[in-house]
Amino acid sequence: MNIIKGGVTSPKGFLASGVKAGIKRSGRVDLALLYSEVPAVAAAAFTTNRFQASPVKVSKAHLKANEHHAIVVNSGNANCANGKIGDRDALKMTEFAGKALLLDKNKILVASTGIIGVYLPLLKIEKVMPELVGELSATKGTGFAEAIMTTDTVKKELAVKVKIGNAIVTIGGACKGVGMIYPLMKTEKHPSTKAQGSPEQAKRAEGHATMLCFLTTDAAITKKMLSASLDEAIGDSFNMISVDGDMSTNDSCFIMANGLALNREIRAKGNDWRKFTEALKLVTGELARKLARDGEGATKFIEITVTGAKDEVSAKTVARKISTSNLLKCAVCGEDPNWGRIVAAAGASGVDFDPDKVDVYLGSLKALSNGMSVKNLDKNKARKLFMKKDVHIKVDLKSGLHKATAWTCDFSKEYVAINSEYST
Amino acid sequence: MNIIKGGVTSPKGFLASGVKAGIKRSGRVDLALLYSEVPAVAAAAFTTNRFQASPVKVSKAHLKANEHHAIVVNSGNANCANGKIGDRDALKMTEFAGKALLLDKNKILVASTGIIGVYLPLLKIEKVMPELVGELSATKGTGFAEAIMTTDTVKKELAVKVKIGNAIVTIGGACKGVGMIYPLMKTEKHPSTKAQGSPEQAKRAEGHATMLCFLTTDAAITKKMLSASLDEAIGDSFNMISVDGDMSTNDSCFIMANGLALNREIRAKGNDWRKFTEALKLVTGELARKLARDGEGATKFIEITVTGAKDEVSAKTVARKISTSNLLKCAVCGEDPNWGRIVAAAGASGVDFDPDKVDVYLGSLKALSNGMSVKNLDKNKARKLFMKKDVHIKVDLKSGLHKATAWTCDFSKEYVAINSEYST
Repeated sequence: MNIIKGGVTSPKGFLASGVKAGIKRSGRVDLALLYSEVPAVAAAAFTTNRFQASPVKVSKAHLKANEHHAIVVNSGNANCANGKIGDRDALKMTEFAGKALLLDKNKILVASTGIIGVYLPLLKIEKVMPELVGELSATKGTGFAEAIMTTDTVKKELAVKVKIGNAIVTIGGACKGVGMIYPLMKTEKHPSTKAQGSPEQAKRAEGHATMLCFLTTDAAITKKMLSASLDEAIGDSFNMISVDGDMSTNDSCFIMANGLALNREIRAKGNDWRKFTEALKLVTGELARKLARDGEGATKFIEITVTGAKDEVSAKTVARKISTSNLLKCAVCGEDPNWGRIVAAAGASGVDFDPDKVDVYLGSLKALSNGMSVKNLDKNKARKLFMKKDVHIKVDLKSGLHKATAWTCDFSKEYVAINSEYST
Repeated sequence: MNIIKGGVTSPKGFLASGVKAGIKRSGRVDLALLYSEVPAVAAAAFTTNRFQASPVKVSKAHLKANEHHAIVVNSGNANCANGKIGDRDALKMTEFAGKALLLDKNKILVASTGIIGVYLPLLKIEKVMPELVGELSATKGTGFAEAIMTTDTVKKELAVKVKIGNAIVTIGGACKGVGMIYPLMKTEKHPSTKAQGSPEQAKRAEGHATMLCFLTTDAAITKKMLSASLDEAIGDSFNMISVDGDMSTNDSCFIMANGLALNREIRAKGNDWRKFTEALKLVTGELARKLARDGEGATKFIEITVTGAKDEVSAKTVARKISTSNLLKCAVCGEDPNWGRIVAAAGASGVDFDPDKVDVYLGSLKALSNGMSVKNLDKNKARKLFMKKDVHIKVDLKSGLHKATAWTCDFSKEYVAINSEYST
C-alpha cells in the first residue's frame, strides 16, 4: 500500500473537470464534475445536522439507485435553507448534468458548498454545463479539486495504490474545508446489495464552508461492502476533525467504485475487504489531516490522542471535546503550553473517568500525573513543544484499553478576520 | 421588587473585604472574604466538570454543615489539578480564615479562580489573613467584587429589594468571569433541612478564568428551600451563558441567608418562596448578563431566544448550541447578518424538530420562514440590526410551547489576543 501523487482521476476510468460558472463573486472556478466512464457503485455519508441542504436530500434519494456515473458540485453557494426551491434547484443540477452526459438524473449525485440561505444561480449553471462536460479529462483531477474550494488555501488531493489479490487497485480522493468544520457524518443504509458491472487561495468572501470529500476507486466491490468501508473510514478520519466546532448542513463524503481494476469482486468482509478498507482509511485519514492543517486562519496543526478509555466512544468523545476547546487552540496559537485547558476540556466531555488517575503529556513531556500537576515541569521544554508547527497532546485516562485521535488547528486572529467579513 | 445599587453587603449583617496577597503577578487585589455576622444557611451549585478543583471539593464537604459564616476566595490561581496537595491547600484556606475569625473551618466555604495546575502560594495567604479579616466592613462589597476579578474589565455587583410578608428582604450578589465560561452547575442535595436562627481592568496574564458568584440575603429561609431557589435561579441565568464554550473546573455559585430581615421563615414552596425565588432570579439573571456582556474581548452582547420547542430542555439545548457558534459570534463581531450560521448551529444541537417549519428572526426582521430563506430580505435593515451593541436573535421551532433564552458575546480578535498570551 503506498501513497502516490494523484487525486480523483488516478483510478482507472475516472474523468473530472472544473469551470467558472459565475457562482463565486471572485470569478474563480466554482463548478466541478466527476465522471466514471463505466457504471459505478456509489456510497456516501452525510451530515447529521437537522437542517439538511437540498443537495444532501437529492443525493440521498439518488443513492437508492444501484448504478451511478457522476457527481456534480458547486462552490460559492450551499443551496441550504432554500426550501422546496432549493430542492428543485439541486435536482435541476443533476438534470442539467444528465442532459449533457446523456444519463438519467438518478445516476448523478450532487453537492454544494458556500453561503447558506441564498438561492442558486441556476441559469448560470445550466449555461456552463456543456463546457463542464466538454472539459472532462483523466488529467483534470486537480482542476476538480480546485473548483470545489471555498476558504481553502491549498488544493487537497491524494491517491493510494494497493494490491488486492492479483490486481492493483487505486483509490483517489479530493476534499475541501475549511470553516464550519466539525463533521459527524453517517452513511444511509439502503437495502440494495446488487453487484455492479463493473487550485491557489480561494477568495474569502465565499465563506460558509463545509467539508466535501469525493473518493474514487477502480476496485470491484459491492455497494454494500463499499458503504461498510466508507463507514469505517470516516469514523477515524473526517468524524474526528474540528476547525471551529460548527457542524455544517452540507457535509458529504462520496465514493464511487467502477470495478476497472478487475480484482475479484469484494462481496464480503474477508481479507480483500480489510485490505481495501485499510487503503481507504489511509486516503481519508490523510485528507482529514489536510483539512485540519488548512483550517481557517490556522498557523499550527494539533493532534490529540486519548488512551486508556473504557470504550471507543469515550475515547473519541474526550478527544473531540479537547479538539474544540477555543482556549486550548488560542494557547497553541500563542505557543503557550497552558495544559490546564486540556484538563478542563477533558473534564467537560461528559465522559466518566477517574480524574485522580489521569496523565497529560505535551509531546513526550508529562505535565499531569495521576491528576496532579508535575512539580518542576520544564517550562522551556514545554514551550518549545508548543513552538513546533505540529503540536502533539496525549491524555491517558488509565481506565481502559481504548484509544482515539482527533485533529484540529490553532485559533488565530485570522480566523476571526476571515469569518467577520461581510457575506452580504 | 426593585434593583438597587449595591452588592454582597447590601443585605443586613454581611461584611466583606478584599486585599492583596500577592497571588496575582499583577500585584492587584486577589484575596476576598465574605462574612455574615450571625450564622447563616448556605447553598451552592458547582461545576459538573469531571475535574473538580480542590476548593469545589472542600466547599462541597463543608456544605454538609447546617450553619455557615464566611466564604474565602482567591483569584489568580484555580488550585485545580493539584491532587491531594491542592485539597489540603483549599482546606488550609478555610483554616486560616477560621483562625482569624474564631470559627470552625467547617463553617467556612472556599473558592478559587485563575490558572490551573499551579500550586497555591499558601504562605502568602496565611500571612495576609489577619489583614483580610481586619478589613471586613459593610461598605466593602465593591472591594470584594474587585478582588475576585481575573480578566473582567468591570466589577459585577447588584442588589434587589423585595417585600416578603411585612418584611423587606434584600438579596445582593457579585460575580466574576469572563473566559472559560460555559457553566453547567448543579446544587448538591443534602439531607439537612434544619431551620437556622435567624476596579478597573484586570491584568490579562491572570487568565484561565471561571465563573464565581456570591449571593447574600437577609431572608429567613431554610437551607432546603434556599437550595431549591438557587437551583431554579441558576437554570435560567448562569447555566444559559457562554463566552467561549469552555466549561471550567471551578464554576461555583454560593448563597448565604442569615435571617436578619425577620420575615416569617420560608419553609415551603408557598407564595413567600415564589416571591423570594423571583427576586433571586432577577439578581442571577442580571449578573449572568453582565458576565456575557463582559466576555473576554467582547464588543457586542447577543441574546438568543428559542421558542416553540416541544420541551424546556430542547429549547435550552438549541439556544445554548447557537450561543456557542464561533461562526455566528464572528459574524456579529463583523456586523455581518449572516443568519445561515444560526440555522446550521440550531440543526447541530441534536434536538429533533421539523426544519421545514422553522422561522429565524434578526431583531424583528424575519430571515427564514418555514425553513426557507426570505426572498428580498432587506439586507441594509439586517445589517443595521447587527450594528447595534445588543443583537437579538430569535428561532421559532414551531413544534411546541416551550422557550428559553441564552446569552453570549461576539468573538473578536481581542479574545484570541487575551488567550494566546503566555501564562508561564
